[in-house]
Amino acid sequence: MNKLRKLGYVANMDELFPTSYSTAVYLKSIEFDGKVFVVGSSGISKELAKVGIESIGVGEDLTPSHWNPGMADFDLDPKVRAVVVGFDNQFSFPKLAKACSYVKSEDCLFIASNLDETYPSPRPGIIVPGPGAYVSAIEAVTGKEAIALGKPGKFFFDCIRHIHPDIDPKRTVMIGDRLTTDMVFGRNNGLKTLHVQSGLCTFEDMVNFVNSDKPEHHLCVPDYYATSLAQFSHFI
Amino acid sequence: MNKLRKLGYVANMDELFPTSYSTAVYLKSIEFDGKVFVVGSSGISKELAKVGIESIGVGEDLTPSHWNPGMADFDLDPKVRAVVVGFDNQFSFPKLAKACSYVKSEDCLFIASNLDETYPSPRPGIIVPGPGAYVSAIEAVTGKEAIALGKPGKFFFDCIRHIHPDIDPKRTVMIGDRLTTDMVFGRNNGLKTLHVQSGLCTFEDMVNFVNSDKPEHHLCVPDYYATSLAQFSHFI
Repeated sequence: MNKLRKLGYVANMDELFPTSYSTAVYLKSIEFDGKVFVVGSSGISKELAKVGIESIGVGEDLTPSHWNPGMADFDLDPKVRAVVVGFDNQFSFPKLAKACSYVKSEDCLFIASNLDETYPSPRPGIIVPGPGAYVSAIEAVTGKEAIALGKPGKFFFDCIRHIHPDIDPKRTVMIGDRLTTDMVFGRNNGLKTLHVQSGLCTFEDMVNFVNSDKPEHHLCVPDYYATSLAQFSHFI
Repeated sequence: MNKLRKLGYVANMDELFPTSYSTAVYLKSIEFDGKVFVVGSSGISKELAKVGIESIGVGEDLTPSHWNPGMADFDLDPKVRAVVVGFDNQFSFPKLAKACSYVKSEDCLFIASNLDETYPSPRPGIIVPGPGAYVSAIEAVTGKEAIALGKPGKFFFDCIRHIHPDIDPKRTVMIGDRLTTDMVFGRNNGLKTLHVQSGLCTFEDMVNFVNSDKPEHHLCVPDYYATSLAQFSHFI
């Protein structure tokens, strides 16, 4: 919110929808009964705590010195009934082993708070892996597919409408810099879409999706584009 | 080798082919000129050193305390021209970020020493993730596909024949416990295949592959099977 204020926008807490929030809303909506193993940061565990769901896993989890190569040895918490994957800069071998063990066990939900493979990088040439990387690893190991609760799914918009029932999709513009999640999210939910090209995806990426033979790529094509949000804001 | 001796088999070093060895042989065969970033254990870096290739990355690589969420900040070594992925129980967020950054850069090879998603686990319910998990994560982030040098590829058998040119594939049996790598490796190289069911895959898994509609699954079906290697050894 401070970041938004610095950029000159006024926002209240109930107007921001981090994916950690939609995860908590989802679990509450299905009357989830159990503990959550989180591959992610404290934002997720705090949102879960707000709706009364206990979680473990957040923070540093280093490989114990007695683990020989080829070994992973830990006790599973029998109360864990869901694994939630978000951005985690403390991702480690023990976390991956635990997440896979829980996901592989019976009756355990496997939830991705979002599927972004990368985050915007502060430096050229440096890639910041996102939750999508961990989700791919866990899917490869367990053979199970994650439920994605962030963009581009419909559930995330349902959460927003639940809090703001007066939103009219036809008079709403989805603004974003990632064609594969932001624009698809807009199209999946009947919103107009605006691509700002100051971030992750370029004009060239957009043209490639326009010319693609794959119908699913056409979902990535925005209705409008602008080189930056600043440029667009002159018109409103 | 000590493990084999304990099991009652006699073996010499030149009769064992760890995938770290095939990686070094491969890079040497293409006259690789550069440094290697290793996501893996010291076995790989030692094999690379034997053929005169310098490598970095092995060992602990923890997230620096000043890295905020959403940030990864490090210097890339401009001499790195290949990323090699093997089993690594020190896998971490910084290693993943570095591997992805190198793979994404131009002219960098992306090599998987093998694609096993899991290793045999010492305890029921505990999953030990293998190199295949890291390869899936890096592929998801970078959009590039790894060259797989271990099983089930043909190159690995070419390495073995390079050292033992007198091997006759028709008189050779590929014995293994993993249907998706061991049996496919045998079939890809014209060997007979024997599945021992004391390890990773079960009789039921085998039957599922027999009955599958997908032609690629039939490569996973062995010529012979035995409940264990001990049972089979009575016949030879």
